[in-house]
Amino acid sequence: MVQVNDNYQKLPGSYLFSTIAKKVAAFAEANPDKEVIRLGIGDVTQPLVPAVVAAMHRAVDEMADAATFHGYAPDLGYEFLRSVIAKQDYQDRGCDIQKDEIFVSDGAKSDSGNIQEIFSNDLKIAVTDPVYPVYVDSNVMAGRCGEYSAKEQTWSNVIYMPCTRENGFVPELPKETPGIIYLCFPNNPTGTTITKAQLQEWVDYANRTGAVIIYDAAYEAYITEPDVAHSIYECAGADTCAIEIRSFSKNAGFTGVRLGFTVVPKALVRGGVSLHAMWARRHGTKYNGAPYIIQRAGEAVYSKEGRAQLKEQVAFYMKNAAVIKEGLSAAGYEVYGGVNAPYIWLKTPGNMSSWEFFDDLLARANVVGTPGSGFGPSGEGYFRLTAFGSYENTKAALARIQAL
Amino acid sequence: MVQVNDNYQKLPGSYLFSTIAKKVAAFAEANPDKEVIRLGIGDVTQPLVPAVVAAMHRAVDEMADAATFHGYAPDLGYEFLRSVIAKQDYQDRGCDIQKDEIFVSDGAKSDSGNIQEIFSNDLKIAVTDPVYPVYVDSNVMAGRCGEYSAKEQTWSNVIYMPCTRENGFVPELPKETPGIIYLCFPNNPTGTTITKAQLQEWVDYANRTGAVIIYDAAYEAYITEPDVAHSIYECAGADTCAIEIRSFSKNAGFTGVRLGFTVVPKALVRGGVSLHAMWARRHGTKYNGAPYIIQRAGEAVYSKEGRAQLKEQVAFYMKNAAVIKEGLSAAGYEVYGGVNAPYIWLKTPGNMSSWEFFDDLLARANVVGTPGSGFGPSGEGYFRLTAFGSYENTKAALARIQAL
Repeated sequence: MVQVNDNYQKLPGSYLFSTIAKKVAAFAEANPDKEVIRLGIGDVTQPLVPAVVAAMHRAVDEMADAATFHGYAPDLGYEFLRSVIAKQDYQDRGCDIQKDEIFVSDGAKSDSGNIQEIFSNDLKIAVTDPVYPVYVDSNVMAGRCGEYSAKEQTWSNVIYMPCTRENGFVPELPKETPGIIYLCFPNNPTGTTITKAQLQEWVDYANRTGAVIIYDAAYEAYITEPDVAHSIYECAGADTCAIEIRSFSKNAGFTGVRLGFTVVPKALVRGGVSLHAMWARRHGTKYNGAPYIIQRAGEAVYSKEGRAQLKEQVAFYMKNAAVIKEGLSAAGYEVYGGVNAPYIWLKTPGNMSSWEFFDDLLARANVVGTPGSGFGPSGEGYFRLTAFGSYENTKAALARIQAL
Repeated sequence: MVQVNDNYQKLPGSYLFSTIAKKVAAFAEANPDKEVIRLGIGDVTQPLVPAVVAAMHRAVDEMADAATFHGYAPDLGYEFLRSVIAKQDYQDRGCDIQKDEIFVSDGAKSDSGNIQEIFSNDLKIAVTDPVYPVYVDSNVMAGRCGEYSAKEQTWSNVIYMPCTRENGFVPELPKETPGIIYLCFPNNPTGTTITKAQLQEWVDYANRTGAVIIYDAAYEAYITEPDVAHSIYECAGADTCAIEIRSFSKNAGFTGVRLGFTVVPKALVRGGVSLHAMWARRHGTKYNGAPYIIQRAGEAVYSKEGRAQLKEQVAFYMKNAAVIKEGLSAAGYEVYGGVNAPYIWLKTPGNMSSWEFFDDLLARANVVGTPGSGFGPSGEGYFRLTAFGSYENTKAALARIQAL
């Protein structure tokens, strides 16, 4: 009799966002007259910008003609997209990253989940706490995380690096050396970030210890402060210790379009083996490239028109972030994030738990957010609101919260 | 110091199609006056049909308007697509498959490579030989295949089931019981298939032994004979032993569009665990759904217009298959496949090896095919030609081969 991968059974049953969805559905059914405003899930609401739409229509037309039809894409991405990424996201910022170090994919979630495959199963991962659940869950599935304690909400073989108001949401270097370190700045869920100088300390630490940093920079388009790095490769020596994962979801509204990329520098070698060659092999074996039409959409993100249009779109969401941040502060809440990220992280008032605050906010203001405890034990007592709603809904939600 | 996944280093270095590409490039450079015709890689050449193109344009326009914009897709696929798949591909053929047993993905290659993750690392896989390389390579990466013998071109911990002219390309039930059995019918690379009655024997064997069949039905649209199953679920009891993987690449020309799906019946349980629930968890954790625009393109494949247009497209390729099959037979070659599949599998003449024939055909006819040995040891002495070229090129290639 065939056996299954037992590691899957170790995962706690209920997924954060499905629990939220159930609670909201129950509330809506019991209160059909109440208009619920959702500032919970990090999904965008603004339409694709005209430059992207035009590029997609053109690409669809190309696919309709045998002379311009495109079959299998190169596994690693079309050169037209890899070139413009290398230039604008890296070389123009002074980072020495070449187009053949960029691997185009169907999104940062896939890459975040799959990247652990190229590492040994024996190593230990380190994550900031709270954290995007995919990093830990994908390692649980691979069998690296040990056992789960429902009481502590932690895995026995994971190094947690708390990020709380006590340390200004800046993780400390771990005492025990991990094999892989997951970092995400600007951070989901806290909306906070660290300075380029602080990030340099992580790069130096990884080079000193041999650890590899998986750097999730999905929110870099939202950075407004000058001393925050848009890429880890702005730090000296990052090419020998870091893999960077990027997304088109939040900077270009591609959550339903699906495009991302991962940078694996050729200088990144462990045990004499090139991680670039391994990731290329993984792509070649288990992936067949992102769709031509969508890679053309990605290229349009880097066009002059696309950049101008998307700058406005990011500004639109950041205006929402300011509405939330200022509105909550005026109402007496302790608020973090929202300056370099579309997420606002608030301390629940009166020592309420994250879920107590969720229930209270839903019941009294009819506003949906995300309980911080869903992102890890150090998220307990915090709550996430996102800036991805419409301006009107965001204003209305804050007016309700202020009226409580 | 972090260690890498050592299993990757076990994979033989050179990938079949990159070796072919290098040989062809070298030939073209040395013979700039010769026009090379490529009947090697299984990539389509006909453009997307009008019904699909129209659906994509409509979907792009929806994404351009906030009122009809689509963000994150459901992880498992939109209901509009899952419903029509369940009805037309399964229920209309008498298979009791429901829409919530269908998982939409970005293609059969990803699913073929990823499906092994939900199984224990301790089990042994069985594959037909020759075979699509992804099944074995993805299991090598997971550490299930033991060691590679370059001499035998086999892995020590894999059960090979030869499919040659001696057994009519019908694999025999393995003597040792495997955990997973990979079957692909109509077959890539041989272009041959088995009858529904023969497939029923595999289903009965799997149910008897507890093995799970991964059934790759990527070429079902090319079936012309009535006693060949389009789905393994046409066989009684398949819902308790089989996972079926399907593609839009060959029936709708989506190689560069990227769409596929996998069926995991709810009745498929091993060790008390639902494989359906495990695959859903894998999708939810490491995947973010296929693009909205492309799922709408997939829906159009099932529309009345789409079906009619694609029937013509498949007929176009099968006309090429007939040209190849009849042309080779007339020239005295021993030929298989091409009746229920777009692949023709020929026995190399005069006991030439697969690569010797490759070199000879390239040098003398300037035609590129795929050496059978690249698909496994039992492919030695065979050669694959595909029907995915243009009609003119296919005719020209056969005229050259006949003139040798």
